[in-house]
Amino acid sequence: MSKTRQLEPLFYPKSIAVIGATNKKDKIGHIIFSRLKHSGARLFPVHPKEAEIMGVPAYPDVAALPEKIDLAITTISADKTVSVIKACAAHGVKAAIIIASGFGEIGEEGKKLEEELKAIHDEYGLEILGPNTLGIFLPETGLDTIFVEHGDKALAGGGSIAFITQSGSVGTEALGVASNTGYGMRAFVGLGNKILLNETDFLEYFYEDKQVNCIAIYAESIDDGKVFLEKAKKIAKEKAIIVLKAGRSAAGQHAVSSHTGKLAGSDRVVNGAFHQYGIQRAFDEEEICDASKTLSMLPLPKGNRVAVITAAGGYGVMCTDYIEQKYPRAELKMAELNNKTREKISEINLSFASSHNPIDITASATDQMYVDTLDTVLSDSGVDIVICFVFFSPPGFSEDLIDLVAQRVKNSRKPIIVFTEFGPYTDGLLKKFYDRGVVGFSSIYRTVRAVRFLEERSRIVRNLGGNGND
Amino acid sequence: MSKTRQLEPLFYPKSIAVIGATNKKDKIGHIIFSRLKHSGARLFPVHPKEAEIMGVPAYPDVAALPEKIDLAITTISADKTVSVIKACAAHGVKAAIIIASGFGEIGEEGKKLEEELKAIHDEYGLEILGPNTLGIFLPETGLDTIFVEHGDKALAGGGSIAFITQSGSVGTEALGVASNTGYGMRAFVGLGNKILLNETDFLEYFYEDKQVNCIAIYAESIDDGKVFLEKAKKIAKEKAIIVLKAGRSAAGQHAVSSHTGKLAGSDRVVNGAFHQYGIQRAFDEEEICDASKTLSMLPLPKGNRVAVITAAGGYGVMCTDYIEQKYPRAELKMAELNNKTREKISEINLSFASSHNPIDITASATDQMYVDTLDTVLSDSGVDIVICFVFFSPPGFSEDLIDLVAQRVKNSRKPIIVFTEFGPYTDGLLKKFYDRGVVGFSSIYRTVRAVRFLEERSRIVRNLGGNGND
Repeated sequence: MSKTRQLEPLFYPKSIAVIGATNKKDKIGHIIFSRLKHSGARLFPVHPKEAEIMGVPAYPDVAALPEKIDLAITTISADKTVSVIKACAAHGVKAAIIIASGFGEIGEEGKKLEEELKAIHDEYGLEILGPNTLGIFLPETGLDTIFVEHGDKALAGGGSIAFITQSGSVGTEALGVASNTGYGMRAFVGLGNKILLNETDFLEYFYEDKQVNCIAIYAESIDDGKVFLEKAKKIAKEKAIIVLKAGRSAAGQHAVSSHTGKLAGSDRVVNGAFHQYGIQRAFDEEEICDASKTLSMLPLPKGNRVAVITAAGGYGVMCTDYIEQKYPRAELKMAELNNKTREKISEINLSFASSHNPIDITASATDQMYVDTLDTVLSDSGVDIVICFVFFSPPGFSEDLIDLVAQRVKNSRKPIIVFTEFGPYTDGLLKKFYDRGVVGFSSIYRTVRAVRFLEERSRIVRNLGGNGND
Repeated sequence: MSKTRQLEPLFYPKSIAVIGATNKKDKIGHIIFSRLKHSGARLFPVHPKEAEIMGVPAYPDVAALPEKIDLAITTISADKTVSVIKACAAHGVKAAIIIASGFGEIGEEGKKLEEELKAIHDEYGLEILGPNTLGIFLPETGLDTIFVEHGDKALAGGGSIAFITQSGSVGTEALGVASNTGYGMRAFVGLGNKILLNETDFLEYFYEDKQVNCIAIYAESIDDGKVFLEKAKKIAKEKAIIVLKAGRSAAGQHAVSSHTGKLAGSDRVVNGAFHQYGIQRAFDEEEICDASKTLSMLPLPKGNRVAVITAAGGYGVMCTDYIEQKYPRAELKMAELNNKTREKISEINLSFASSHNPIDITASATDQMYVDTLDTVLSDSGVDIVICFVFFSPPGFSEDLIDLVAQRVKNSRKPIIVFTEFGPYTDGLLKKFYDRGVVGFSSIYRTVRAVRFLEERSRIVRNLGGNGND
């Protein structure tokens, strides 16, 4: 599986045939075809009877297609798929995405179909993504084969994360929520049953893609673990790799009913291997989104010393507890501010503010006090990372703080990460931060966890001798 | 501190004097006075010059008040407070809420003022909440002294949680977010500097309040830990007690600048004591809200065996991993379904659904398959708790599922807890579930954590020989 794949036709097809395209609304072939109209590729619907699909001339079968085709997308049922894929291969189609389920995941009969598909690949070289996959979404070009609701407007903003997932729902449902507060995706790849193309192939592909700086993978099995790890180690010098390997527990593994990759088995082995090869682990759908968002947007810290600025004392205390208790899986510590920094903070703020880290500027502070304090903390050489608790209910704070903090995020070589919450406005405020390049969360736990990923990544880069995002 | 307090005048005052009430908008005395107009109590604004405040006749000073007053609320500055409280006491006022900051938390001068306030209490018996507090919010009557934005419309729905907090911001900001997806509060109490009334007093008060079934406490210090623990042990037989004790780490304790309660010191000691006395711990602002919401709404499980129903395989696997890995702090395990249950699940669902726990009914299932499966699982004697992953993007599911699941939650003696997410509609869907009596979350981690609190609580009740919520 380690030969180099030709994946350009999959991501940048000049021509796409859609076998199963239909004028019947609510059908998958209709949803996908209508989405592809925005992809910029020449479209060739294939339909046995219709003369046109949504105004585009249709062809009765694959053999009738008038030119060489880069990518075929099939939405027809499993039993009809093999013969159509064979016809595609014979016609010179370079790559195919097979959407239908009903293959290996249902049992022996489906596995037999998969073997036939592999044989077609072996004979003709046609690359196959799937079957049983949501396919590809590339916000840059508008290529989009995802047929379920996926918050596409939000995700279409683009970014530098490649999100590769063995489970369609993990991709769409989790990313749909992540996009509420901002999530920048370069590409989405649904692996499906991955009879040919797998996580390693796309890892390698996105290594070459200069617009990608972070690769997030949800996997229930990893094919050919050794090759995967070796490639990951090389790539992790330059790009963050986060893997959510589901099926950690015995019962979880049992639930992973399909293929068992070579990395399955002891979760301790997976953990050790990932650590050694520079892969960062996530354990749930929210964590993989939070981690990839953070790693794709922020510079890496030079060390693990965190300063916390808050206008609400209790939040500073809880955050300090998480940082100092090395939880969750953190190697962070509270920065010790130098005397000059502390004096300056005292000058900036009201007499009852605390200049000790966590710095509590109190709910009587103003926007100006906030950013002056932030600037002071950033200039302290004993600080590697700053967590900013930003509240909007105290009367001295306004939404101007969003821009003011964003300026510091933009100009600082130290990572700054924001916590904010304000009742029903919470997600909207986080989205405003995101739109200005600021990573933010509305839970202390998630905020510290995101910082942990940054710090872990900086250690990985140092250990591997790489250069990270810089 | 263990003498029984007379707190009725604080929660159910028939008459309230507001010293500092003003017609000047944006002033705290204005905000509080205008909120109190909905409280049903007779209001007596005290103002040196104005003849009326917002149309209510004002009095020049406390001595001029025309009748005995249950509750005085002062919004005047710290330096003017002592003489006013003395006048209140002399006039027979039974309880006072002191909103102003500038007392013990700013140093020696403020501590001296607090000693003077305590002396007034000792002489006259007037109960004092605060100073430096947001006071009280009682949705039932509309008594509300919180002067910052606090999502009051959502919180005002009422419920059975008493939320006692030493930090105003932890109360208002965290509860503001919790109320987006539904949070049912019987009462909010801000302790402030708690020079007299403290967590133990309110713990005892809410023990007697039949409408409260769950007491949540955010504390940075606990006064007289031994008395607190003894009372907690008695109360925990009947009502859930969740304590977020901030300042777990040395740096966190340092950040807790004010009083150091007797329970401060080693966090391991706190942990052991809480465990022994039936108190459940939360570690952050989100967890205390999630836990109290869950414990206040759901019946307790008879055991720790969890069944998981999902339409997305990956979510079932990740959930299983969390359950089986005893994380976070869980003693849960996956239920083993009996053969009859599995056969029935297979009959109900499509051929490629999985009848093994986690039960994956697949994205091709329908509302009816979902609830038939749920009914079948609930009737299996090997199942104590059910987690339902409810997705709305698959075509066979509709919002009818909310009502259908809610009916089961209402009629089942086993706790059912929901996970759902659907892009921008997520919070709205969770709120719809909540409005129908269903506890739900949009993260696997938080869902399993909530189940953990239920299971832990059921063990506590068994150990203490209590009867829980039943």
